[in-house]
Amino acid sequence: MSQKGTQSVQFDQAPYILSSASVVGKKEGEGPLGGLFDMVGADDLFGEDTWEAAESTLQKEAATLAIGKAGISKEEIRYIFGGDLLGQSIATTFGLMELNIPLFGLYGACSTAGESLSLAAMAVAAGFGDQVLAVTSSHFASAEKQFRFPLEYASQRPLSATWTVTGSGAFVLAKKRSKVRITGITTGKVVDFGIKDSMNMGAAMAPAACDTIYQNLIDFDRNPEDYDKIITGDLGYVGQEILIKLLREKGFDISKQHMDCGIEIYDRTTQDTHSGGSGCGCSAVTLSASLLPQLEKGTYRRILFVPTGALLSTTSFHEGQSVPGIAHGVVIEHA
Amino acid sequence: MSQKGTQSVQFDQAPYILSSASVVGKKEGEGPLGGLFDMVGADDLFGEDTWEAAESTLQKEAATLAIGKAGISKEEIRYIFGGDLLGQSIATTFGLMELNIPLFGLYGACSTAGESLSLAAMAVAAGFGDQVLAVTSSHFASAEKQFRFPLEYASQRPLSATWTVTGSGAFVLAKKRSKVRITGITTGKVVDFGIKDSMNMGAAMAPAACDTIYQNLIDFDRNPEDYDKIITGDLGYVGQEILIKLLREKGFDISKQHMDCGIEIYDRTTQDTHSGGSGCGCSAVTLSASLLPQLEKGTYRRILFVPTGALLSTTSFHEGQSVPGIAHGVVIEHA
Repeated sequence: MSQKGTQSVQFDQAPYILSSASVVGKKEGEGPLGGLFDMVGADDLFGEDTWEAAESTLQKEAATLAIGKAGISKEEIRYIFGGDLLGQSIATTFGLMELNIPLFGLYGACSTAGESLSLAAMAVAAGFGDQVLAVTSSHFASAEKQFRFPLEYASQRPLSATWTVTGSGAFVLAKKRSKVRITGITTGKVVDFGIKDSMNMGAAMAPAACDTIYQNLIDFDRNPEDYDKIITGDLGYVGQEILIKLLREKGFDISKQHMDCGIEIYDRTTQDTHSGGSGCGCSAVTLSASLLPQLEKGTYRRILFVPTGALLSTTSFHEGQSVPGIAHGVVIEHA
Repeated sequence: MSQKGTQSVQFDQAPYILSSASVVGKKEGEGPLGGLFDMVGADDLFGEDTWEAAESTLQKEAATLAIGKAGISKEEIRYIFGGDLLGQSIATTFGLMELNIPLFGLYGACSTAGESLSLAAMAVAAGFGDQVLAVTSSHFASAEKQFRFPLEYASQRPLSATWTVTGSGAFVLAKKRSKVRITGITTGKVVDFGIKDSMNMGAAMAPAACDTIYQNLIDFDRNPEDYDKIITGDLGYVGQEILIKLLREKGFDISKQHMDCGIEIYDRTTQDTHSGGSGCGCSAVTLSASLLPQLEKGTYRRILFVPTGALLSTTSFHEGQSVPGIAHGVVIEHA
């Protein structure tokens, strides 16, 4: 039986992460993780005419690189589980079209990175595919246009705002042995604390992260110490503080284990990114470039990776709706 | 082994459709299938203030009805696989939030109905959940606002245009025996024939439908006659003609078996719907209200259900991109 607790799965035959790739923009390349990414763009257009096409190119490059690193051909990938933040997921549509692989399109805002890994792991573990690709992306400029203001307005950003990462991370999951495997997942629910400030997504997502992490610990009967790191996607500095506080109220102290990809990816003092990085690409490229190598080496034995998403559109926001959150947990272990 | 051919899965332990529900708007209630739906709204606002909130209510009602018909509580649903057409899938977020069930958000345009059934079937077949819900929706007014023009403009619609169905269909898939089961799936690829007319989505989606149906017949080594019906989602009259022609060129004549939910749902002569109905809700409510009862009775022994999606956003469209299509095939049989 692979169902675990009320909201989790423990894989009897845990799928391996055979390879991964990260492609980022210029600013991410200049950040603390800059030297670790597979490819850093010279500008953020990646040779395209529009930000949306640039984001598609990010996905295509990350997917192609990951498949190449796995030493397989694209025909050997059975499914892609992919998504992005744009309306109707157009970065994914146009980015992955040429690969000509059956596609399950996903949307979970920035949690899509966790959602895609979860479903890809389920597909491989169940034998529906021997090799499956999970890929997500975000782009600062396409996201600002989609969710906030055209860049040309040069709007001032509040200190609680995050900076959408220009980047795409792709992962080949497979039956074939590697040094890292996904041993379990905890799938998140939509959690709404009534936050109405789209410039404070950390606060909107922290309750969802709390809910998923708490349920993961309960379902697997673990304590925070059973993980070397508990890593959220893009809560940033503001969300991190709230998450730790909320989990303390529920009886768990994760202050020693907690890490946030949005905090790791930029240098707060020199890069003017305020609360930190965000976006589907933020957690995906950090996992590929920084976390997986540590799991491969065994520096980390087991981590809980929890990409977090803020569920809003300009329409819902302008209609006065709140910004609910969702977070999907993925347990990744050294093998 | 459950993988079949290059793009399909045949379920060793085929999951059952335990129950389903359909909720539609006024116009759909006045159409040829009007008497079959579980619930028909008196107007299209369903007691809400906005079209988007109305669409959320459609999903919530359909999901709640389906769960009720299955004779289970919502706590017994392990996962929801859900989606809609709106940017950032807000109808789904706000519609399903109250259910408090782990959610995998999906986006495949109108093919999402097939995508959600496919993933839900995979989850149940693999033992990741004993009961899983698949739900999708669309709403004429929220879709017009999202993709075309505000209703207040009273824009004239070309004859190739389809009419987005106001409706939501929900399905409880389970291990527990019923009279209908999903025995296989064929997951679609993004197919682009370079159509640039967002008012002719039938033409944009027909090549994708052709690709998936063809691959299904090859993967399962079947002929069109092995299906009582081959039912596309929302090609409409324009797309139907193209699909039949394209498949003839590939050696299969489906003219006897083919049926399109977009053609079935409205009366062309009296309802002013031009090429037919469309939207995630179109195929979902037709399956629930009209097709499943025939499968339960055994009038149909086996059908191939192929929801079709046109992958565009206003941004991609305004940037001059084409409208690619995708179609996901689901084999449903009398049990």
